[in-house]
Amino acid sequence: MLGYNLIKKDKKTKARVGEIILPEGRVQTPIFMPVGTNGTVKGLTPYYIEETGSKIILANTYHIFLKPGINIIKKFGGIKNFIKWNGLMLTDSGGFQVFSLPNKKINDEGTFFKHPYTGEDVIFTPELSIEVQEIIGADIIMVFDECLPYPVDYKYAEYSIERTREWAYRSKKTLKNNKQALFGIVQGSIYPDLRKKSAEYTVDIGFDGYAIGGVSVGEGHELMMKTIEMTEPYLPENKPRYLMGVGLPEDILGAVERGIDMFDCVIPTRYARSGTFFTRMGKIRIDKKKYAKDKFPIDTNCNCYTCQNFSRAYLHHLFKSNEILSDVLGTIHNIYFYNDLMKNIRFSILNNDFLSFKENFLKNYRNND
Amino acid sequence: MLGYNLIKKDKKTKARVGEIILPEGRVQTPIFMPVGTNGTVKGLTPYYIEETGSKIILANTYHIFLKPGINIIKKFGGIKNFIKWNGLMLTDSGGFQVFSLPNKKINDEGTFFKHPYTGEDVIFTPELSIEVQEIIGADIIMVFDECLPYPVDYKYAEYSIERTREWAYRSKKTLKNNKQALFGIVQGSIYPDLRKKSAEYTVDIGFDGYAIGGVSVGEGHELMMKTIEMTEPYLPENKPRYLMGVGLPEDILGAVERGIDMFDCVIPTRYARSGTFFTRMGKIRIDKKKYAKDKFPIDTNCNCYTCQNFSRAYLHHLFKSNEILSDVLGTIHNIYFYNDLMKNIRFSILNNDFLSFKENFLKNYRNND
Repeated sequence: MLGYNLIKKDKKTKARVGEIILPEGRVQTPIFMPVGTNGTVKGLTPYYIEETGSKIILANTYHIFLKPGINIIKKFGGIKNFIKWNGLMLTDSGGFQVFSLPNKKINDEGTFFKHPYTGEDVIFTPELSIEVQEIIGADIIMVFDECLPYPVDYKYAEYSIERTREWAYRSKKTLKNNKQALFGIVQGSIYPDLRKKSAEYTVDIGFDGYAIGGVSVGEGHELMMKTIEMTEPYLPENKPRYLMGVGLPEDILGAVERGIDMFDCVIPTRYARSGTFFTRMGKIRIDKKKYAKDKFPIDTNCNCYTCQNFSRAYLHHLFKSNEILSDVLGTIHNIYFYNDLMKNIRFSILNNDFLSFKENFLKNYRNND
Repeated sequence: MLGYNLIKKDKKTKARVGEIILPEGRVQTPIFMPVGTNGTVKGLTPYYIEETGSKIILANTYHIFLKPGINIIKKFGGIKNFIKWNGLMLTDSGGFQVFSLPNKKINDEGTFFKHPYTGEDVIFTPELSIEVQEIIGADIIMVFDECLPYPVDYKYAEYSIERTREWAYRSKKTLKNNKQALFGIVQGSIYPDLRKKSAEYTVDIGFDGYAIGGVSVGEGHELMMKTIEMTEPYLPENKPRYLMGVGLPEDILGAVERGIDMFDCVIPTRYARSGTFFTRMGKIRIDKKKYAKDKFPIDTNCNCYTCQNFSRAYLHHLFKSNEILSDVLGTIHNIYFYNDLMKNIRFSILNNDFLSFKENFLKNYRNND
């Protein structure tokens, strides 16, 4: 059960500021949601997740289903109690993960695969996905869809959106509680007529929000933007739109411009662990020798815990020494950077200034060392 | 520059409560000091190090000398600025580390070894050790000594304590500032007459505190206790005594009983990373299946951030999933546990109750799963 207030529409673009209202909290959009695959945003205590300004975090249904398993989550009364996160959560349906498995088999019933730990046969169906997501108990949950690879031929994609439609019906029908918001997912690869059709199918069933799936699968920035453009006109204005698995700051800015409200991505967390940190001047690789004696923080304009306390030289030292604290401090910064970007985006939209904010950001953001 | 106030002597044992006064702070003893080898207590931000109740942390001179190197530490005006630790610090002399190297050569001048990164020849001498420690800038620094292996024959140990005496002289002579406290180190292996002689040599030179070195090198609990007993009577009452590299809770309790004030050890931090957590009932191995559904914290009587928030089941899940947060939360708990033990030890001494506290602690502390 979810409400969405559209607060402000940009005059020159489709960018918009809104508010998502959930039983356990409300958040302003556009929003970025960090990924906590196994029920942990890698390296961060809930205290630091809050410190980064994060309001919603993700967990992956597939991973939680395998380990620790839903019996344990049930015993704890949901994942938030288990991981001690007081904010909001979203779970994906497991669709993306099971379709990434090498030996799965797909038919209209669902996806068949071998449990990687026990070797048992598992059938992931829309019904099972929703039942698992009800037990996990996130605030926002997703329908089970067929996530298409890229590239995929038209014929397969055409059939697949019918299956995804059917699975969306079955997902919605399965959901028994009225506390969790359920989002539909639009597929259709890069084909405009299929995206339109899939969007219409999904909206016709009716969900609390609409996701664009099957993006960020190797199609590149331009095609991703085009995919949004061919989908967004068929999504209702009075519901939040979520671009799944995206992305880099430039992707997010382009997507916001095209009417997207919600984002999740492993980039800020994964990049942090490989020593790549985001700054207003672009990405920096902290292992570079030039940072060994650098007394400045990662980003001199950043107010995160890391930048308020530590130098690039110390972070260089930690990274070169394979110290866990490098992952921790880098992750704090990168997530904070993303959340700060979203805050500035919202602010610029409220001030009718989104386009110049975007242009200005991208002008400065060109370092890629 | 160090003061030591002996606050209270236990009536039945040699246990004592004291206060060490340093230019940048004061601490009560007996105290445990967590190890931050590379300038980081692995996984913990300074915020969490403080949360564990730690007042003094260690850094290893040898490691800091190699990486990031003293030029960088000098540029930052000392290690505390570099790592942003507002508490107190202690550095070892590098003696233990260089003597652990496989291809070092030792003579009366110092220790010769190949720089593991550059391949250059390095001579670590008492003079160099102190110069490096002055640049690192810890509150308490250590003389460069010859750390004897165990077992070692009497003849070698007999000669070695003469060398350690000479190196202690040279260390003291090298120290140019009067802000850092300098501790001498007593060697002599397990030979009572050599320990006595080395203690007398060291006290004769005169230091701000006295360490017992060459323990916790495989000699076992009983011999370690005997080594303290053969050394402590020759150490002045009005200076702090530091047992280097020790140890398990039972070692610490036995050493406090025999008059020791200060301890450092990698055990709480290293054990945490391997999933071994300390409790009042003994050590637990969090990977055991029985913890998979366990809703209790590591230790129900513990007030640390980890125990106040997280279940054994979640920690089991994090550890089994190789999640960094397992290291972080486990380290917070284990260090807190050690600091809490020290607090209870001090409290029991102040209440003339040390022996019964110790017996009671050890009676409960028998789990080793």
